[in-house]
Amino acid sequence: MSTRTLITGGLVITASDELPVDVLVEDGRVAALATRDSHGWTADRVIDASGKYVIPGGVDAHTHMEMPFGGTLAADTFETGTRAAAWGGTTTIIDFAIQPKGGTLAEGLDTWHEKAAGKCAVDYGFHMIMSDVNESSLKEMDTLVASGITSFKLFTAYPGVFFSDDGQILRAMQRAGSNGGLVMAHAENGLAIDVLVEQALARGERDPRHHGEVRKALLEAEATHRVIRLSQVAGAPLYVVHVSAQEAVAELTRARDDGLPVFGETCPQYLFLSTDNLAEPDFEGAKYVCSTPLRPKEHQAVLWRGLRTNDLQVVSTDHCPFCFKGQKEMGREDFSKIPNGMPGVENRMDLLHQAVVDGHISRRRWIEVACATPARMFGLYPRKGTIAPGADADIVIYDPHAEQIMSAQTHHMNVDYSAYEGKRVTGRVETVLSRGVPVIDDRVYAGRSGHGSFLQRGICQYV
Amino acid sequence: MSTRTLITGGLVITASDELPVDVLVEDGRVAALATRDSHGWTADRVIDASGKYVIPGGVDAHTHMEMPFGGTLAADTFETGTRAAAWGGTTTIIDFAIQPKGGTLAEGLDTWHEKAAGKCAVDYGFHMIMSDVNESSLKEMDTLVASGITSFKLFTAYPGVFFSDDGQILRAMQRAGSNGGLVMAHAENGLAIDVLVEQALARGERDPRHHGEVRKALLEAEATHRVIRLSQVAGAPLYVVHVSAQEAVAELTRARDDGLPVFGETCPQYLFLSTDNLAEPDFEGAKYVCSTPLRPKEHQAVLWRGLRTNDLQVVSTDHCPFCFKGQKEMGREDFSKIPNGMPGVENRMDLLHQAVVDGHISRRRWIEVACATPARMFGLYPRKGTIAPGADADIVIYDPHAEQIMSAQTHHMNVDYSAYEGKRVTGRVETVLSRGVPVIDDRVYAGRSGHGSFLQRGICQYV
Amino acid sequence: MSTRTLITGGLVITASDELPVDVLVEDGRVAALATRDSHGWTADRVIDASGKYVIPGGVDAHTHMEMPFGGTLAADTFETGTRAAAWGGTTTIIDFAIQPKGGTLAEGLDTWHEKAAGKCAVDYGFHMIMSDVNESSLKEMDTLVASGITSFKLFTAYPGVFFSDDGQILRAMQRAGSNGGLVMAHAENGLAIDVLVEQALARGERDPRHHGEVRKALLEAEATHRVIRLSQVAGAPLYVVHVSAQEAVAELTRARDDGLPVFGETCPQYLFLSTDNLAEPDFEGAKYVCSTPLRPKEHQAVLWRGLRTNDLQVVSTDHCPFCFKGQKEMGREDFSKIPNGMPGVENRMDLLHQAVVDGHISRRRWIEVACATPARMFGLYPRKGTIAPGADADIVIYDPHAEQIMSAQTHHMNVDYSAYEGKRVTGRVETVLSRGVPVIDDRVYAGRSGHGSFLQRGICQYV
Amino acid sequence: MSTRTLITGGLVITASDELPVDVLVEDGRVAALATRDSHGWTADRVIDASGKYVIPGGVDAHTHMEMPFGGTLAADTFETGTRAAAWGGTTTIIDFAIQPKGGTLAEGLDTWHEKAAGKCAVDYGFHMIMSDVNESSLKEMDTLVASGITSFKLFTAYPGVFFSDDGQILRAMQRAGSNGGLVMAHAENGLAIDVLVEQALARGERDPRHHGEVRKALLEAEATHRVIRLSQVAGAPLYVVHVSAQEAVAELTRARDDGLPVFGETCPQYLFLSTDNLAEPDFEGAKYVCSTPLRPKEHQAVLWRGLRTNDLQVVSTDHCPFCFKGQKEMGREDFSKIPNGMPGVENRMDLLHQAVVDGHISRRRWIEVACATPARMFGLYPRKGTIAPGADADIVIYDPHAEQIMSAQTHHMNVDYSAYEGKRVTGRVETVLSRGVPVIDDRVYAGRSGHGSFLQRGICQYV
Repeated sequence: MSTRTLITGGLVITASDELPVDVLVEDGRVAALATRDSHGWTADRVIDASGKYVIPGGVDAHTHMEMPFGGTLAADTFETGTRAAAWGGTTTIIDFAIQPKGGTLAEGLDTWHEKAAGKCAVDYGFHMIMSDVNESSLKEMDTLVASGITSFKLFTAYPGVFFSDDGQILRAMQRAGSNGGLVMAHAENGLAIDVLVEQALARGERDPRHHGEVRKALLEAEATHRVIRLSQVAGAPLYVVHVSAQEAVAELTRARDDGLPVFGETCPQYLFLSTDNLAEPDFEGAKYVCSTPLRPKEHQAVLWRGLRTNDLQVVSTDHCPFCFKGQKEMGREDFSKIPNGMPGVENRMDLLHQAVVDGHISRRRWIEVACATPARMFGLYPRKGTIAPGADADIVIYDPHAEQIMSAQTHHMNVDYSAYEGKRVTGRVETVLSRGVPVIDDRVYAGRSGHGSFLQRGICQYV
Repeated sequence: MSTRTLITGGLVITASDELPVDVLVEDGRVAALATRDSHGWTADRVIDASGKYVIPGGVDAHTHMEMPFGGTLAADTFETGTRAAAWGGTTTIIDFAIQPKGGTLAEGLDTWHEKAAGKCAVDYGFHMIMSDVNESSLKEMDTLVASGITSFKLFTAYPGVFFSDDGQILRAMQRAGSNGGLVMAHAENGLAIDVLVEQALARGERDPRHHGEVRKALLEAEATHRVIRLSQVAGAPLYVVHVSAQEAVAELTRARDDGLPVFGETCPQYLFLSTDNLAEPDFEGAKYVCSTPLRPKEHQAVLWRGLRTNDLQVVSTDHCPFCFKGQKEMGREDFSKIPNGMPGVENRMDLLHQAVVDGHISRRRWIEVACATPARMFGLYPRKGTIAPGADADIVIYDPHAEQIMSAQTHHMNVDYSAYEGKRVTGRVETVLSRGVPVIDDRVYAGRSGHGSFLQRGICQYV
Repeated sequence: MSTRTLITGGLVITASDELPVDVLVEDGRVAALATRDSHGWTADRVIDASGKYVIPGGVDAHTHMEMPFGGTLAADTFETGTRAAAWGGTTTIIDFAIQPKGGTLAEGLDTWHEKAAGKCAVDYGFHMIMSDVNESSLKEMDTLVASGITSFKLFTAYPGVFFSDDGQILRAMQRAGSNGGLVMAHAENGLAIDVLVEQALARGERDPRHHGEVRKALLEAEATHRVIRLSQVAGAPLYVVHVSAQEAVAELTRARDDGLPVFGETCPQYLFLSTDNLAEPDFEGAKYVCSTPLRPKEHQAVLWRGLRTNDLQVVSTDHCPFCFKGQKEMGREDFSKIPNGMPGVENRMDLLHQAVVDGHISRRRWIEVACATPARMFGLYPRKGTIAPGADADIVIYDPHAEQIMSAQTHHMNVDYSAYEGKRVTGRVETVLSRGVPVIDDRVYAGRSGHGSFLQRGICQYV
Repeated sequence: MSTRTLITGGLVITASDELPVDVLVEDGRVAALATRDSHGWTADRVIDASGKYVIPGGVDAHTHMEMPFGGTLAADTFETGTRAAAWGGTTTIIDFAIQPKGGTLAEGLDTWHEKAAGKCAVDYGFHMIMSDVNESSLKEMDTLVASGITSFKLFTAYPGVFFSDDGQILRAMQRAGSNGGLVMAHAENGLAIDVLVEQALARGERDPRHHGEVRKALLEAEATHRVIRLSQVAGAPLYVVHVSAQEAVAELTRARDDGLPVFGETCPQYLFLSTDNLAEPDFEGAKYVCSTPLRPKEHQAVLWRGLRTNDLQVVSTDHCPFCFKGQKEMGREDFSKIPNGMPGVENRMDLLHQAVVDGHISRRRWIEVACATPARMFGLYPRKGTIAPGADADIVIYDPHAEQIMSAQTHHMNVDYSAYEGKRVTGRVETVLSRGVPVIDDRVYAGRSGHGSFLQRGICQYV
């Protein structure tokens, strides 16, 4: 038997439109949109969204739940992490499965399926991190694309761990170019950075702020340019993750002016935080250690501009939380031992709405960078990322006037600090539907582990 | 009593989406969109769009019906021109009222209202050409914005006719910056061009192709850069009309990389024709005389790229037809006497669909540059330019598989030649609704003069 | 009978070399250079330059002695001005003759010849300011080139005074392109600036600092780009005078990257002073009113970089002094009435040597931008601008270790203030030869009015 | 007892001047320059240079005599190669000593000293190729700088042979940054190229022209950008060898606009030859196999422009000849087995003079890129690279009107083909002095093996 939900009275905001229309949800999907007075719809449930925004659920294309890093694990499981995502208005995450060094892509994927299956509060998909590019893993890429894992992350950073050399990256790009896959690149010159790390430690520079100093903006720009050129040689599109340096944005801009299918993602931490945070005393800077690192404040304006000019297309979180106690502390004597990563999956939609309030981006652009484009980029549109007849009814009722103060006291992520502790923002999630089912209902958690399904993704639709 | 039309079975294409949904039209507006099997709508009229595209009616933001030029008049009246527009799938035109030299903006506007009232087959609006920027006309700009004439065209070309000096342009931009108006610029260095014209004629260079040679790409680029800088000083947005030179695109790209609210329009003639046409023998080149002029073929790729990278946002026609016989012939002995302008209002949507077929742009981008963005740019969105609940039901049923050959024999524009004579294209308008009323009904003209209403426009929504 | 002077023991510095060699001067010219121990030269006079630099006399390519401006005259005559030049190590000036509005170039030239003849302490040439570009003055350009006046200054600034429109500028450039002349441009958008001046005054902004605010950097950049494009159309080289804005440097850089023969001059005031000076209280800012105006401090680094990258080639003074008392004061109530111009002909060589001390430029680059390039640019090389066999013996013995404090108390310019009052610099002119004859002899004036001769210049040798 | 040579009647051309002066040579050095009629010099030998150019001997900063490559040796020994150099007007070569893999820099240097000692017709120096960057070789760099080996070549190409990874390159640059050394980079992405080579061979593409296709311009540009950024991080200057792609020039231009101390060398083969040569039938293309490879013809104009705008500073030969018979033929079945390299040390000065005749560069620029700048760049100026009192008397009497046809029949290089076979050029070396001693005397070889001395070089003087 079908269930019908009517969302009435709100302003429906998508990447393209702001319309005072009503939304009819049937069987987990959007059935129709209509002007308020033209329809006579009845429904099992009516949500009064008067004075509220009705927006697509957020799509966070970059999370790392339970990720192993330096001998520890990211603190959010798929259960706690997707619940926090829902609290923050995000109804889809795309996490990263990791090929074990010397193993197959399939092995990595199996491991991650196990972690996630039956745990998630909202829908999820996987990218694949390639730790070992060789004849066999290249062939496996085709299989994965066919089974809905259509994006592959390569690293120019982390020699000895995730690092691939330029020949390997080129081969992976060529394969993606022919099977429709999308290569994602972590673009920092890891070989050069490792030299600078060693030299800094030898000079006795051991504090968290040196993490930012050795991972130089120029070395992010260099690697960004390099992967752009390799993708050009391969004839394949490219998605650069967590762009933080203005010099890297400049490389993307140059490539895009030339019409290349090259895309850039940034994250809230680069838009709202800076090296000032990394320099906080008493080892507090460790909370903000992630790679690429936070940059000096003046980079923020360039990132905002990049989001406005569409030289950056997506804002994801790179959510990868490690508790200050016990985890971040592993690097007290040596910044290079601090687990890299920050919490954020719950904060993204609100921080970007604050950016609307602050005048950095428009309301439609908010939805575009946080919902529609990540969905298109990773083959989920229009099922995810918009509100349109036929789409999954992943819908958020958002109160644009409510105020909140971000804090570890009140957040739902499984981590003992907030990167935005004390930050006051305007706007708050009120109700969240995932495929028509309430997960957050008027600020009460109504979801359940296992509601979230694995998403077989199609190929990139943004090219 | 309300009339209901149901458009069923088609693929609804907007700037943002391609959805297999049905559209319900009520009282001239789109009432609802729904998945095909979720609704049980009845209607007075059902249009079966199976296998067809259902697209917003085109918005041509640059036409010159009955425009006086060099002692003659553009050959299409508002009656013949808007009828031809409808045949070509365009349901909104924005024409240019002209301030008479020494007169007021209001006088110019009155004259054009008279020309258009009761004549048009589809809706129309006006931009205002400022021929005389002074204290009084600057003040009048505010009045016009308030009454729905929200864009103002200034010329760096045509000294002695439409030319304004840089001080006048700056003043107009400042005023627009404060009242929400949008300055449109014809960007060519007219003072320098006049020198080159005089010198060419003195050397005996009198053929149409010299029109292209004297109006140099560098002088378009120069003026484009100049108006960009003036708009930056004024703190006002800028819309550059009929961009044809790759060097001018480069200036727009540079400005947009810097985040400036600077926009560019190009036209089908620059995308599909070239100086090769201007060089056609027996004075046939005169058919292609317009300003900015056609450019060498290699500029086309840059224009297409600009459309893809969104460094160019709009494709309008600059429709301004003069018959070869009697009108173009006025310049047989002197290219500078050839009336400037070409027909095209009927061909735009089809040529741009051909560009989709040829792989230059995507289907959604076709609708964006031809419908959605011009509507946003000139304050008509979402009333025009999209298919969404609440929008005017300006809808085209487009057959993407039909083939046609463009020809003066078959076109509906009141001009004795086609700029695309013999060109075979794929795709054809089948049915056109204007506010729900059929204007073209399965390739039969069903419209009437006077159906088209004057559109009071809001301010630019694209910034 | 021939006179021989031997300069021994110094370090001869030219644009290309730093050589510990001796210089033999005979009959006003350099006869030979030789290693110290290889020659057995005898001489009437031996100058011991041990521990000193032996450098070419400075070439100041931009001065305005006795120039009429706004009803008053620049305070230095050719007599006082060239004497001050000599004190400052400059042995050649190129001043500007002015075509009277409605008159001929010849008339202007005659007037300036009269002013200078028999008065000058060092050699001098003339550029010609074209106030009235028309058929007749264009033809006269050929005559002037033939008689040694090979450069012509046009203005995009000062409407109603020196302003030429773009058509006139193009014509002058075309003529120069064919007769070997070099067009110099004062590049500011004067029409736009006049609007901003009027508006500023209307708002009651009357202080000297508003002079800097209305003459916007963007409007210098705009005009710089414009004259570059016009020169490209004309196929002629271009020399942009007194570049002060980083945005203008960027336009030159772009043009030079494209290989265009486009050159830029800056002046010491833009390198050492800033809008901070214009904002000095009690109308003291008026001392620094010149056009282009001083810019905010951050522009200085870009100018220095431009000098290092050779995007700027020449440092001249634009020496045009007006006394604070009685002259600058004319604008006490209205910044637009302050005579435009600053003293500097005596300070240039020392300030640029200070730049060597400060590490901005190398010693050879000092001589290049101050001596060799201006001589090449304006057809005087190697007669002027270097020390080589056959060159005029315009030679300065420069003490690189002496210290001095710049001050109106001690300077020799006929003006009641110094723009660098109190500035301490390292380096000082000790002895100056003009064609072998001492003008400054061990810091005593030894020259005479009328020693300086008019220089018939050849065409630009820098292209 | 001292010997004196007088060179009279010629036009002395240096990088900075063209002077009709006489040159006195004493004891192997230039003693003096003087105007023709001012001196009464007597000499043991008088060379009448009337109607000729008197120019500095060429400095070829990039040769590989007897270099091992792929199991064979470059065909010119230091004896035959330096003799050919002299015939071509080059009086200084800087060759490359190679650190053996696993060995020390000193070992490599010793080997090369042995090869050259007592063999050379003209003076020679060494750069050091670092095949193994490690703590010990990094320390050795200091020793080498102190002993006159002041430049170090690193490769981003040739994995497994000369390749260094980015961390090694950064370390070497840091060391050079602190000891005054100059890092030279062969900039091609070798890891990516090796992938393309393997794929091409797998597709059966085995002809010489595929050598050009796999070594893509984009991969040269990529590596060029990369080494620029690494040098920026290291705070060290950089010299990029054998730049051939316009995209690589663009990277240099961009860096130089930013004021970075980054330099580029190109070679005659890139200026005069193209992929058309690589495509010559019957395996003749193998004659033109070198790395970076020849590029399509349109790159030539950009290289010439780069030489004019000083974005490229030096023209060297990369002389590394392999005979067609027996050597080039090793790659008949597999282009990747063709020894990389071309002859040219004898042709450089003539080809560049032809460029003067053709209008690509001026006479002074000819001397600058071929003599003065390589000498400055590698710490030999003014001893080498110019004609000035105190300089080594390495002087060429050059007949600018003589015609010659380049051919293996007549050249003096020890290789069985000429890359310019049949090319007619204007200009020819007539007489060559090396430190005052005739090596070529009126087109007769007058030199001897062992005349040439090893040059201890100072640090880079071009920064």
